Amino acid sequence: MTRDEALARDATDPLRTLRDQFDLPQGRIYLDGNSLGALPKATPARVAQVLQQEWGQDLIESWNKAGWIDTPRTLGDRIAPLIGARPGEVLVADSTSVNLYKVLHAALSLQQGQRRKVVSERGNFPTDLYIAQSVCRAHGAELVLVDSPDDIEPQLDEHCAVLLLTQVNYRSGRVHDMAKLTRWAHQAGALAVWDLAHSAGALVVDLLGTAADFAVGCGYKYLNGGPGAPAFVWAHPRHHVQLTQPLTGWMGHAEPFAFTTDYHPAPGIQQFQCGTPSILAMAALACGVDTLRAADGLGGMVALRGKSVALTEAFIAAIDKQCPQASVQSPRDVAQRGSQVSISLPSNINGYAVMQALIDRGVVGDYRVGSGSAPGLLRFGFAPLYVRFVDVFDAVTTLADVLTRDTWREPRFQQAGKVT
Amino acid sequence: MTRDEALARDATDPLRTLRDQFDLPQGRIYLDGNSLGALPKATPARVAQVLQQEWGQDLIESWNKAGWIDTPRTLGDRIAPLIGARPGEVLVADSTSVNLYKVLHAALSLQQGQRRKVVSERGNFPTDLYIAQSVCRAHGAELVLVDSPDDIEPQLDEHCAVLLLTQVNYRSGRVHDMAKLTRWAHQAGALAVWDLAHSAGALVVDLLGTAADFAVGCGYKYLNGGPGAPAFVWAHPRHHVQLTQPLTGWMGHAEPFAFTTDYHPAPGIQQFQCGTPSILAMAALACGVDTLRAADGLGGMVALRGKSVALTEAFIAAIDKQCPQASVQSPRDVAQRGSQVSISLPSNINGYAVMQALIDRGVVGDYRVGSGSAPGLLRFGFAPLYVRFVDVFDAVTTLADVLTRDTWREPRFQQAGKVT
Repeated sequence: MTRDEALARDATDPLRTLRDQFDLPQGRIYLDGNSLGALPKATPARVAQVLQQEWGQDLIESWNKAGWIDTPRTLGDRIAPLIGARPGEVLVADSTSVNLYKVLHAALSLQQGQRRKVVSERGNFPTDLYIAQSVCRAHGAELVLVDSPDDIEPQLDEHCAVLLLTQVNYRSGRVHDMAKLTRWAHQAGALAVWDLAHSAGALVVDLLGTAADFAVGCGYKYLNGGPGAPAFVWAHPRHHVQLTQPLTGWMGHAEPFAFTTDYHPAPGIQQFQCGTPSILAMAALACGVDTLRAADGLGGMVALRGKSVALTEAFIAAIDKQCPQASVQSPRDVAQRGSQVSISLPSNINGYAVMQALIDRGVVGDYRVGSGSAPGLLRFGFAPLYVRFVDVFDAVTTLADVLTRDTWREPRFQQAGKVT
Repeated sequence: MTRDEALARDATDPLRTLRDQFDLPQGRIYLDGNSLGALPKATPARVAQVLQQEWGQDLIESWNKAGWIDTPRTLGDRIAPLIGARPGEVLVADSTSVNLYKVLHAALSLQQGQRRKVVSERGNFPTDLYIAQSVCRAHGAELVLVDSPDDIEPQLDEHCAVLLLTQVNYRSGRVHDMAKLTRWAHQAGALAVWDLAHSAGALVVDLLGTAADFAVGCGYKYLNGGPGAPAFVWAHPRHHVQLTQPLTGWMGHAEPFAFTTDYHPAPGIQQFQCGTPSILAMAALACGVDTLRAADGLGGMVALRGKSVALTEAFIAAIDKQCPQASVQSPRDVAQRGSQVSISLPSNINGYAVMQALIDRGVVGDYRVGSGSAPGLLRFGFAPLYVRFVDVFDAVTTLADVLTRDTWREPRFQQAGKVT
C-alpha cells in the first residue's frame, strides 16, 4: 500500500465521516485507543450542560428532572446492542474491577459451593486475576491459571465452577472464541464470565447468541468515555431472578428511597448498582457510546469490525515489508485478532525507547514490559471510528525510520519512566 | 431577627466572600447542600481543561504528565486537614458504599474472627446497614442495631468487633460524640468505623485526635464535588501496615504497571484503591474541596462550623417564632446538631406537599418519609460556605406563609413523586 493508495482507501471508506465526531490532536497519529479512547467533540458541551444547568441551576431536582437516577440503566440500554445484549440487561456502574468482583461472587453463589475451581489464564489482565484471587478466597475456591488457550478445555471438568476470560488479550490482542468456550464451559456445568475490556466497541460481540453468563467491560477504551470512565456489567436474563452479590449498596436496593433497614435487592441487573454513581462521568461516557451508535446506519459493529480488520491487516503487511527488525506478536489470523497489533523487537533494541521516540515524532502507541519468556511489546491500537489508512501508512513509515536512524538510542528516550 | 438584622449579619460575616466561589441559581434559596452541594464557579473551566487539553490533546500521556495517576492520593491530601488527618492517610476512591465495604472487611479482618458482633444504629443511613449486613455475613458476624444512642454503650463488650456509626444522622442531624464513643469502643477492644457523609466540610472532625480506626465520607454533599462525586476513605496510620481488604483491583497493587500475576497490596492507604478512577469526577471534586480550603486563612473548619451553628440557631429561633405548626426534630443543643435542621408537621398537614410548595416558591430543602413512630421530616441544610442569614430569614418567612395560606393543599403539590 502506497501513501496515495492509503489516501484513496480513506476517501472511499463508507465510515470515514465517523472520524469527524472526534477532537483529535493536530499532527499526531493516535494508536492508543485500546488504552484510552479519543475525546468526542460532543463531550465538552454535554458535560458543561450537566455542570452548569443540571447541577448548577437545577441542583437536587435533576435526579428526577434530568433523569440522573435512571442513567445507569438508560446508558446501559445504549451499550446493549454493541455487545449483543438487550435493553434492561446492562448496567453502567463502578469500575471493571469492582464489577468483576460482583459477577464472580454472583457466579460462585449460583454454583452453591458444589464446584470449587475457577479457571482463567495467567496472561489475563492482572486486575482480573487479583479480583479472582480475592473472590476465590472468600468462597474457598481454587483459581487455576492456564498458560495457553489449548490448556483451557482440559480444565473444564466437573470441578469447574467458573471460566473467567478476557475475550481480547491486552498484550497480544489475541481473541478467544467466546461461543465455543462458553459452550464447552456449559457442557461441563461451569458458568462463563467474560471481560469485554478490549472487545466492546471493537469486535462484534454476541452475548445472548453465545449464551454467556456474565460480562463486564470498560468505558474508557473503545467506548471513548474518558479517563477512568464508569464500566458496565451484564448478566444473562436467565440469572436475573436469582442474582446475589455482596456489594449491597442502597442504589441496588429494590426501593432505595424507602430507606428501609434491611437490604432487598432490586430485580434484575439493577441490583448490581451499589453507591451513588458519578453523573459527570456517565455524561461523558454517554457521548462516547454515541460515537459508536452513530455507526448504526452504516452497518454498525459489523462494519466497524470490518474496518478494524482492514486496518490491522494493512498495518501488519506494512510492518512485514518496512520493518524487518520487528516481529508481529499478534495473531495473523484475523479471526483471532482484536483491534490491536503488538510487535516485539530484537533484544539489542530497547523497545521502550523506540516507543518514546515514536511518540516524540507524533505516533502514539504504548509499551508493555516483558516478563520471563514474554517479550516487551510495542502496542498499536486501531480504533475504527477515527484511525485512517493513511495513519497506518505514516505510522509504519515513521517506525521504520526510527529503527533505521537509531533515533531511539538518543539518551532522552532511554530514561525509563512510568509505563502506563 | 428581622430581615435587616439578617442582612447586617451577612454584611459583617468574615466568611461572606466564600459564597462568591459558587454559581448559585438566581432567585432560589438552596438549603439542600447536605444532599448535593452547590456548583463551584471554578468547576466548569477546570473540567473543560481536563476534557479538552489533558484528555483531548495529551491523551494517554496525561496519566503521568497531568498527574492523573496520583490524583486519588493528592486529592486525599487536600481533604485530610478537613477531617483531622494527615497527608498520606486519605484516598479518594469509588463510592461511600464501596469504601465502607472495604473498611468493614479490613476492620473485621484485624479482629481475626475473635469477636463477631458489629454494632450500629437502626437509624444509620441505609446503605451503611446494607453493606454491614453483607460484610457481617461474609465474616460470620452478627449485626446488632440499637434504637437509641444510649443503647450503644451496653453493646460495647468483649464480643464487639466493630462499632460502625455515621457521625451525623441523615434524618435528624444529630451528632455523635466521636471522641467518647471511639474511646468506649477501644476500651472494649472494638474498632471504631465512622461514616463522615454529613460531617466532612460541615463539622470540625478530628480523626487523629479521637484515634478513630477507619472513616469513609462523601464527596457530593458539603465537599461540593458534584452529583455522585467520588468518596474518600481513611485509615489510622497504626493500621496501615496490616491492612487487608477484598476489593483487590490493580490500582491498589504495589506495582500496578509491573503487571504481575499475584496481588501484592500497595503500602498504606493506597491499597484501598481498586479500579481505574474517573479523572473527570475527581477534577470536579478537587474544585469542591478547594472551596473549603479557601477558608484556611479565615479560620478554616472552626470558623465554618461556627457559622453553621449560627445559621441553624437562627433558623430554629425563627421556626419557633413564626411556624407554630412545626416541631424541630433536630437536637436543640448545638453540640449535638450537625449543619441541618429537620422539622416535622402535624399529621393533618402533608409535609411532602409543603416541601413541594416551598420549592415552588424558591426555597429548596428536601423531604424524608417517616416510618413507624418516626415522623416525616422536612430537612433544611445550611452549608456555611454559601448560605446567608438572609436566606434563613426568607426561608422561614416563606415556610410560615405556605403553612398559613394552605398553598400546600393545591392539587399540584399533592402528587407524590419520587422522593430523593
